Amino acid sequence: MNLPIIRFILGSILKIQAFFFLLPIITAIIYREDTLTSYLAVALGSLIVGILATLKKPKNSVFYLKDGCVATALSWILMSFVGALPFFLSGEIPNLIDAFFETVSGLTTTGSSILSDIEALSYSHLIWRCFTNWIGGMGVLVFLLAVVPMSGGSNINLMKAESPGPSVGKLVPKIRYTARILYLIYIGMSLIMLILLLLGGLPLFESLCATFGAAGTGGFGIKNNSMAGYSSYTIWITGIFMVLFGVNFNAYYLIIFHQIKKAFKLEEIRWYFCIIFLSTGVIFFNLYRTGMDIFEGLTHAFFQVASIITTSGFATADFNLWHESSKAILVFLMFIGACAGSTGGGLKVSRLLILIKTIGKEITSYIHPKSIKKIKMDEKPIEHEVVRSANVYFITYIIIFAFSLLLLSFENKDFTTNFTAVAATFNNIGPGLEGVGPMSNFGHYNYFSKLVLSFDMLAGRLELFPLLMLFIPELWKDTVKTKRKKPSP
Amino acid sequence: MNLPIIRFILGSILKIQAFFFLLPIITAIIYREDTLTSYLAVALGSLIVGILATLKKPKNSVFYLKDGCVATALSWILMSFVGALPFFLSGEIPNLIDAFFETVSGLTTTGSSILSDIEALSYSHLIWRCFTNWIGGMGVLVFLLAVVPMSGGSNINLMKAESPGPSVGKLVPKIRYTARILYLIYIGMSLIMLILLLLGGLPLFESLCATFGAAGTGGFGIKNNSMAGYSSYTIWITGIFMVLFGVNFNAYYLIIFHQIKKAFKLEEIRWYFCIIFLSTGVIFFNLYRTGMDIFEGLTHAFFQVASIITTSGFATADFNLWHESSKAILVFLMFIGACAGSTGGGLKVSRLLILIKTIGKEITSYIHPKSIKKIKMDEKPIEHEVVRSANVYFITYIIIFAFSLLLLSFENKDFTTNFTAVAATFNNIGPGLEGVGPMSNFGHYNYFSKLVLSFDMLAGRLELFPLLMLFIPELWKDTVKTKRKKPSP
Repeated sequence: MNLPIIRFILGSILKIQAFFFLLPIITAIIYREDTLTSYLAVALGSLIVGILATLKKPKNSVFYLKDGCVATALSWILMSFVGALPFFLSGEIPNLIDAFFETVSGLTTTGSSILSDIEALSYSHLIWRCFTNWIGGMGVLVFLLAVVPMSGGSNINLMKAESPGPSVGKLVPKIRYTARILYLIYIGMSLIMLILLLLGGLPLFESLCATFGAAGTGGFGIKNNSMAGYSSYTIWITGIFMVLFGVNFNAYYLIIFHQIKKAFKLEEIRWYFCIIFLSTGVIFFNLYRTGMDIFEGLTHAFFQVASIITTSGFATADFNLWHESSKAILVFLMFIGACAGSTGGGLKVSRLLILIKTIGKEITSYIHPKSIKKIKMDEKPIEHEVVRSANVYFITYIIIFAFSLLLLSFENKDFTTNFTAVAATFNNIGPGLEGVGPMSNFGHYNYFSKLVLSFDMLAGRLELFPLLMLFIPELWKDTVKTKRKKPSP
Repeated sequence: MNLPIIRFILGSILKIQAFFFLLPIITAIIYREDTLTSYLAVALGSLIVGILATLKKPKNSVFYLKDGCVATALSWILMSFVGALPFFLSGEIPNLIDAFFETVSGLTTTGSSILSDIEALSYSHLIWRCFTNWIGGMGVLVFLLAVVPMSGGSNINLMKAESPGPSVGKLVPKIRYTARILYLIYIGMSLIMLILLLLGGLPLFESLCATFGAAGTGGFGIKNNSMAGYSSYTIWITGIFMVLFGVNFNAYYLIIFHQIKKAFKLEEIRWYFCIIFLSTGVIFFNLYRTGMDIFEGLTHAFFQVASIITTSGFATADFNLWHESSKAILVFLMFIGACAGSTGGGLKVSRLLILIKTIGKEITSYIHPKSIKKIKMDEKPIEHEVVRSANVYFITYIIIFAFSLLLLSFENKDFTTNFTAVAATFNNIGPGLEGVGPMSNFGHYNYFSKLVLSFDMLAGRLELFPLLMLFIPELWKDTVKTKRKKPSP
C-alpha cells in the first residue's frame, strides 16, 4: 500500500472538514450558543493536524484500487469521528458512541437518529447535523478531487471507491473536471431548491436544513415529527427535489449539453420514474380507501415514496400505522434505492436491472443452451465485468445483511424492528418500522448494536468492498512488505 | 420441445402414483375407513390415464435440458393435483385449493399445513400425507429413472431438473444405476430408522409416519403438537436421522465403498456439522439461562436445529416463544438448508460456501487485481460455470422471495408472519414464526396467498428454474414450431 498518499489524503480531508465547520461556527455566533467553543476547538485541531499531515507531499503519486479503497474507508471513519466530537464535547450528546452513530448517520446520508428530542439541540448542532447529509451526499473525496490538484492518473480509484453504482461514468476524460461538474450541478440544484423553499415562506434556517437533508437524500430533520408540520407547498417541493436528487447525475450532464432526448432514454431513469409512479398509486389507493382526502392522500403517498426510494427518510406521517401492503412496498423501495450516480443509496435501480436481466438470460440459456447473448442496457451490451461485479455485490450485500440481523437479534427485540433497522441503515434510509418507525428512534439499541448499525451505514454508503477490505489481514501484511520493496500492482 | 416424451413421462408418473396409492388403500382397508372409495377411484383413474398416455412410445427419445425441466415441473404439478384429490373427494379437506396446498406441501417436503386439527383426519389420509414427504424427498423422477428403462443418453436432464444442489453428481456413469443406488440408500436408511423407532416402543403406524416425515425431511406429523408428546428416545432418534438424511448422499456412497476418510473430508459435510454444533450450542445456552434442565434444553435445542437446518419442520416446543436470538438463528438456518444431494431444501450448504468464496475472491481481487485464482472446493478448483450458476441462483432466489413477500402483504398480516411464511415454504421447512409458528398453521391465508405459497414450495423444491421456465412464452411458441420442424438444440 502507498501509505504516504493515504496520509496525505486523510490530512487533506481534515483540512476540508475544518473548513466545513465554518457553517456551525457562524450559526453558533449568530445564535450566541455555547457550542461555539467545541466547534472552534475541533476545527482548529483538525486544521493543525491536517496541515501537519500534508506538509510532505508523497513522492510516489501512483496508487492502486486498493489504496483508493483504503483511503476512502479511512477518510469516512475519520470524518465521522471528528464530526462527532462537537456533539460530544458540548455535552448535548453525552456518549461518544451515540455521537459517532449520529454523525455516521449524517455523513452516510442515512438519517437514523438516536435522539428522542431533536428540538432540544442547539441551532449550530442542528445545522451541522443537516450539513453532514449534504457533505456526504456527493462525497468528500469527490470534493477533494474537485479542489485539490493531485498528480497521477490513478485518481479514478478514489472516485470508484466513493461513487455509488455498478460502474463509474467519467463525464469528461479528466477526473478533476468530472468532479467539478458534479459539484456544480449539486450546488446549483441545492440553490434552486433553497430559493423555492424561501419563496414558500419557510424561514432561512429551516429552508437550509431541509435543502441539506433533501439534496444529500439524508433526511435529517430539525423537528421531532420530521416534516409532518410543514405546509403542502414545502412538502411537495421537498418531495420533488428528493426525486430529482435521486436521478443519475449523468442525466443532468446530458441535459445541460442539450441531449435531453438521450437523458430520457436512459433505461434506469425510465424505470426509476415508473417505480415511483406505481408505488405512489398503490399507496394512495390504500390511503384513499381508509377515507383520506384525495389531495392529502396523494401528498402523503408521493412524499413517502419519494423519501424512501431516494433513501432520504423524511416522514410526513407515521407510515408504521399504514396498511401492510403499503409498508411492504416501502420496505421494497428501501432495497431498490435511487439511481446509480445520484446522492441516494440502496441497491440502485440500474444494478437491479442488471440482476433481473441476468435472471432472464439464465432462463433463456435453458431454452437455447448454445446462445451467447450479452446483457444490454440502453441498447448497448454491458461488459461482462460489470455484470459479474453487480452479481457479487448483491450476494455480498445479502450476506452482510443477514449477519447484521443475526448480531442485532441478541438484543431480543422483535424481528420486524431488527429487520427494518438493518434495512434502514444499510440502505442509508433512516427510519424503519415498529421500534425504529418514523416516530421512534434508534436510541434504545445497545452500544454493540449501534456499532453494527454504524458499520452497516458506512458499508452501504461506500458500497461494501472499501470497508470490507479493512478486515483483510493480507492488506496490512502487504503494507509492511512495500516499505521494503517496490509496491506490487 | 419434445412433446411426445413429455406426455410419456407424465403418463409414467401417473402409473407410479397409482402404485403409491396402495399404501393409503391398504390403510383404509385395515382401519375400515370410508376414504377407501376416494383412493380406489383416484388410483384407478390415474392408472387408466397413465396407461393410455404411455401406450405409444415416443419415436425421438432425445430430449434437451428444457424438455427435462418442463417434464419435471409439469410432473410435480400433476402429482400434487392428483395427490390432492382423495383429500378433497372424501370431504375431509373440503376445498380443492386447500387440498392442493397440503399435497404440494407434502411432496415438496415442506410440511406446512392448512389444518388446525390434524388428528381429526382418517388414518389413510394421515399416512398418505406423511408418505408424500417420503416420495418427494428423493424425487419421483429419480424413482422413474431407477425403475423405467428409458433409452437415450439425455436422461441426466431429468435428474438435473429434480436433484437439489449446485451441480449434479453422477455416482456411476450410468444414470439409471445412480438413481437405483440413491433409492437403495434411501430405503435402507428409512428401514433402519423405522426399526429403531419400533424398538423404542412406538407403534408401527406412528413409526412409519415419523420415518416418512424425517427421511423426506418433510416434517408432516400426525399430532396437533407435532413431536412434543413423544419420548426423548423417539425425539433423539428422529433428530439424528433428520441430520443424516440432510447429508449429501454422495458421502454414503463413498462410505459404502470404504472411502470413509474421503467422505469426512468433504467440505460441505464438515461445515454442515459445524453449523449444527454451533447453533445447538447457542440455543441451548439461551434455554439453559431461562432455567431449563440440561438434558431437556439439549434435546429441544438439538432437535429444533436438526429439524430446521434439514428443512424438516418438526417441532418439540413452541420456538416462537424463545429468545429472539434463538429465533434469528433458526430463521438463518431456514435459508442455509441442508447439504446438496440430500433430501433437504434451502439454499444448501455447498451453494453458500461457493457464494462466500466468491465474495472472498472479489475482495482479494481488489488487492491483487491481476491474480486469476479459481475458487476451490474439496481442494479442487470449481468450474466457472458452477460458480456462475450458484450466483445467478442466489439472485433469482432472493428476488422471488421479495416478490412473494410483496404479494402476501396485501393480506395485511404482520411482517414477521409473512416473512417467515415465505421463508418456511420457499425453503421447504414447514412452520415459521408468529401467525405461522409451530403451533399455528397456514389455514388463515386467503386462496391467492395459498397459491403464491404453493408456487414457492414447488419453486424451492425444484430449484427455481424448471418452474420459472413454464412462464416463458418463447418456450410454448417453440413447441408449435417443432411440430413442423426438426427440434432445435
